[in-house]
This record gives sequence, C-alpha cells and structure tokens, in this order.
Amino acid sequence: MAVKEVYIAVIGAGGVGKAFLSQLESLSTRLSRTPSSPKLSLILLSSSKKVLYTHKYTALSLGNTASSLAQSAQEPLSLPQIIEYLAAAPSKAVLVDNTSSQDVANQYPAFLAKGISIVTPNKKAFSGTFKLWQEIFGAASTSGAKVYHESSVGAGLPVISTLKELVDTGDEVTRIEGVFSGTMSFLFNSFAPTEGSGGKWSAEVKKAKELGYTEPDPRDDLNGLDVARKLTILARLAGLEVASPTSFPVQSLIPKELESVSSGDEFIENLPKFDSQMEETKAAAEKEGKVVRFVGSIDVGKKEVKVGLEKFDRSHPIASLKGSDNIISFYTKRYGTNPLIIQGAGAGGEVTAMGVTGDLIKVLERL
Amino acid sequence: MAVKEVYIAVIGAGGVGKAFLSQLESLSTRLSRTPSSPKLSLILLSSSKKVLYTHKYTALSLGNTASSLAQSAQEPLSLPQIIEYLAAAPSKAVLVDNTSSQDVANQYPAFLAKGISIVTPNKKAFSGTFKLWQEIFGAASTSGAKVYHESSVGAGLPVISTLKELVDTGDEVTRIEGVFSGTMSFLFNSFAPTEGSGGKWSAEVKKAKELGYTEPDPRDDLNGLDVARKLTILARLAGLEVASPTSFPVQSLIPKELESVSSGDEFIENLPKFDSQMEETKAAAEKEGKVVRFVGSIDVGKKEVKVGLEKFDRSHPIASLKGSDNIISFYTKRYGTNPLIIQGAGAGGEVTAMGVTGDLIKVLERL
Repeated sequence: MAVKEVYIAVIGAGGVGKAFLSQLESLSTRLSRTPSSPKLSLILLSSSKKVLYTHKYTALSLGNTASSLAQSAQEPLSLPQIIEYLAAAPSKAVLVDNTSSQDVANQYPAFLAKGISIVTPNKKAFSGTFKLWQEIFGAASTSGAKVYHESSVGAGLPVISTLKELVDTGDEVTRIEGVFSGTMSFLFNSFAPTEGSGGKWSAEVKKAKELGYTEPDPRDDLNGLDVARKLTILARLAGLEVASPTSFPVQSLIPKELESVSSGDEFIENLPKFDSQMEETKAAAEKEGKVVRFVGSIDVGKKEVKVGLEKFDRSHPIASLKGSDNIISFYTKRYGTNPLIIQGAGAGGEVTAMGVTGDLIKVLERL
Repeated sequence: MAVKEVYIAVIGAGGVGKAFLSQLESLSTRLSRTPSSPKLSLILLSSSKKVLYTHKYTALSLGNTASSLAQSAQEPLSLPQIIEYLAAAPSKAVLVDNTSSQDVANQYPAFLAKGISIVTPNKKAFSGTFKLWQEIFGAASTSGAKVYHESSVGAGLPVISTLKELVDTGDEVTRIEGVFSGTMSFLFNSFAPTEGSGGKWSAEVKKAKELGYTEPDPRDDLNGLDVARKLTILARLAGLEVASPTSFPVQSLIPKELESVSSGDEFIENLPKFDSQMEETKAAAEKEGKVVRFVGSIDVGKKEVKVGLEKFDRSHPIASLKGSDNIISFYTKRYGTNPLIIQGAGAGGEVTAMGVTGDLIKVLERL
C-alpha cells in the first residue's frame, strides 16, 4: 500500500452502520501495527438526521462515534457538499454507504468521478436503471476509483467476488440459482420443512415478523422485489443487460386483495383468509414428494431471469437449507454437473458489515 | 494498475500448467482491450526437463507454448538462475509455480525477497515447516511482493480468500470442518452412499484408480497426507502455529500389512483381503443411522487439528456430498450456529488453474 493515509466517510448509522463502525475500529487498530499499512481516518459520519465531520480532515475518534453523532450540532451537508468535502481531502478518500438510499446511490457516479472510492451494501445503485450501472462503472474506470458491493447480495457471503472471479478468469457461467432472502428462507423452511408438516402460512409470516425477520411491513419482503434486485445485480455481473428489477417475471406472495391495505398490521390480521392458496401450493409439491421454496434463477444462455416459487426434491441443497440461510449455486462450464455452492447467513448487521469491511480492505490494497 | 508491463514466469507444464497457460492467453487478450491494464508478458516457461525463456525479456508467444517448450534447446536454468533472471527484469515479475515441488517451494523466500510475487497451487510451501511459512510471509512483507495460493486448498473454490476475510475483518473462527479431498469424497460417496448400500471398499478404490481419480499409487491419497497438508494451511491462516502436517493425528486408510508393498498395482491386488475393516466401520455407522466420511477438522479454541473417519447423519451436508466434490464449513462467532459453507469441485486442471489465474488478477490489481 503506497498511500499513507486514507480518509473514510460513513453515511448511515443503523444496524449495519453501527456494526461497521465497530469493525472499522478493530481494523484501524490492526493496521496501525503494520508499518506499511495506511492510517485510516474517519472524517465524516452521517445519519438521516445528523452529521459529524472535521473541517481540517483530522480524524474523529472511533471510540464512541454513536453518541458523538447524536450530540453533533453541525449543519447537515447535502450530497454534493459531501462530495466536494471528500474530493478536497489531502489524500485518497473512501465513501462507505451503509444506507439503502436511492438518493445516495444516484450520486455514486459523481463521487467516483472525483476519485472517491465506494464500498457499500446498498443494492439500489446496482439494481436500478442499467444507465446508472453503466455510469457507475464508467466513472470508476475513468478516474481509477474503486467500487465494491459484496454485501449487496448474500451479505458477507463471498457471492459477488466469486461470480466476478469466474467471469474474469474466463469460465462460462451458464446458470445461477438460489435462495437470496433470509426472510423467505426462514418462512419456507418453517412452512414446508423437509421433515414434519410445518405451520400455516399466515402463522409463519406472523412469527417471522414478531422475531424481527421481516421488514416492519412484511409485504416489503413478500413482494419479491428484494430478491429481484439481487438477481438483477448477479445477472448484470454475468453479462446480461437487465433493464431493471421489474423487467423480468417476479412472483409476489401478497394476495391481490391485501396489496392496498394500509398497514403491515392490517396485512397480518387479514392474511389467514388467504392461507388456502399457499396450502394448495404446498400440497401440490408434497404430492410429488417435493417441497416449495422461493428462489431466484438466471439462465445466462437464454437470458432469462425469474423470481418465484419452485418445487425441489427433499434431498436438494435448496430444500434442506436451515434457519434463515441463503444458498447460491453457480453452474459453469468448468464446474460441470455439480455447481459451486455458497451457503450461510445472508442477512444481519454483523455479517453484512463484514462484507463492507472486507471490501474496504480490498480498496486499501488497491489504492 | 500503475504498472505498464508485468513479466510472468511459469514453472510446471502438467495438467494445471497447461490449463493455466490457456487461461493466461485469454486473460492477456482481455486486459489488452483495457487501456489502464498492464501488458502481460510471458518470459519464461519451464517443465521438469525443458526451459524456454527470452534473453531480453521480450514476450514469448502465448499461442503454442507447449510445442515451443518441447522444441526448446535452451540450457536448463537452476532456481537461483531463474530468480536472478526475474529480479533483473525491467518491470515487476510474477512467478507462477504450477508444480508440487518442495524444491521450488523452498526458494519462495528468495523469490519474494527480490520483489518477485508468487501465485501457486503448490501446497508444499505452506504446509511444510512453520519456519518456511514464516520466511515466506516475512519476505513478502519486507519486499512488498505478493503471495497468493488459493488453489492450495479446494482448487478454485474461494476457501482461502474467505478464511482470510473472516480473520481480517475481525470475525472469530471457532471451527473448520470438511471434506478436502476429491478422491476421498468420490470413494466414500460410492462406498457409503446416503441411499443404497454402496460397493466393497477395495472395489471402489480400484474403480477410482481406473477412472483416474487417485494418484498412480492410491496409497498417496489413502495415507491422508494430502488432507493433512490442506488442514495445516487453513489452521495456520486461522492463527494456529501448526508445526507440520505430521504434527497432529492423521488416520491412514492403508492397512499396516500393505504399507510396504512395492507398487500401487500390488496394493490394489491385495486390498480385498482387508475389506472387513472398512465394512465394520461402515456397519457401525449404519447402526446409528449414519454414514462414514473422511474429514478434516480444526478446533481453533482447543488448538486441535485432526484428519480421519467420522460419522455423519444422512441429512448432514457432508454426508450428502456428490461425486468428487469438496465441502468446507466455517463456524464463526458472527455466523453463529449455521456455518458459512463452500462446496464444489475441489480438484481438476481447469478449476485449479482458475484459482491460480484469479490470484494472478489479484496480484496485478495490487502491484
């Protein structure tokens, strides 16, 4: 690493943001023991309401960032102001975007054009319009700034790095298939387990919500859009020009009648009326000795992407998934009949932040 | 990438070596289309008998390297001569060691000390003495040269990069467990399948040898040393100072009486006499509703590494492995009860070379 000091700006101080700041503190301490490593200086931290930054690029203390941010009385900065501030830093700067904000994502090309590298779990930038995708990687290519987003699919699981390596070393990825949502994984592993009969659909959704495994409004998981965004990212990395996450078939598990009810609570309350639909699907799979799962798949040759319910043999790795684990199978020319499989927790603050920290290390090694 | 030209020297022209040269040709073509990427110049290629290199560091043609090497009449170079040649190159040089030679491995510190980076699937360097391990990473740290060896465990599967990232981002790896040998995987998936009764042990070994899944002398697989080497590498990356691959319990599947027979053929001929031992092991597992598998495991907290037969429930991912696939489970503090699992082909020229090519790309991005 040739650079002596790297300036870090962190946007987003929720679950992932807090876990990242803790990992950043450990990383910074570890690097400070290696003379050839750069000094990491956190110079800006912002949440949706507050901002904390230093005027002369001196480092903020990494010790109690959360309370310092809460006490900050600094005037909020707009995104263009943040770009200007980082672009004028006396050494390389990295933006860590721990939000899921489309507004921040839309500014990535502007950050990158100014030489500011980006690491992020934010799916919005890479699953929005194909134009934004092109602008992001175009700006990075021109300025030499880096952009990594491992945690945008499967949290800290090495999904994106593996797909990139398959492509970059010249393998031919033919098909990608898997369970990409921790929430959907949990729901179907309980609703249609490989052993035993499972609970009612509405009861499982209610339980998942109570355990905090769903979004505040479970419809934000059940509409399939989160999975569609991840599939969009992987399909693009595999070489397909996917226009948007709504440009291919995505099966929503929200009953039509409940699409417009006003709240998540009202949705949960009314869902039992529609249990028969999901019971039928489950029974149809059971008749074939199979179980139903919510999966995403990409057929690269046919340029087909889809998200929805599919049936799997009980012995299939997708069927025997546990808890809220994700599983991603890469079928390629080199790997032949048996895919390269990656499996494990695909959600949660700590593992998501781990992917972000891992990306930051990659950027540091390449600056 | 700041470097304009990178010189590549390839030692080893067997199965992996040939597959790598083909991937290098594709990579070189791809990079030549990206103006900011360095030019890759192959300047030396050697097999155990021949060497081909250019006196003025002009690039060898990547088109028909195998036949050019076969026709070469150049005087063989010693390893110190190769080091001298690469150290004097007018730009950064990378050694690609596609051998499994301990002699080459022993010279890694000398290569690295001269600023020559190394990418390799050669297990010997990283699973030999702990002193060699320290010298290798010490030399790299001092000179800034890079050393990557993804394919030394699980071929192209992202095993080493994942373990490094877990450690580097501050996760606590508590346990690593898996099937690390394609040969052992194939043998046990046939001998003790999760469904059906499987063949006789000696018959499965004979079949595996005929299919080319074993070393010419199958005892080189059955002694467990290959797996012990891989465990040594992973344990060291997880922070354990493992002295050597023979410093922990390794179960050999070679009957004592056949340890000293003169050839692999004689071994195969006499193996049926000892089938009862393995049948008993299989039957004992079956009584518990389990199957037997040849696994390696590392308990990081207890500093225990071991290799040998263990019993698994039929529904366990290790039990339901297919073909000659490897599976590696990382249990960590962040991942909790369910491990991060990586699975797929862990042997074969193409996928092994892919790990090497992937490592070369990583080096290029960091030079």
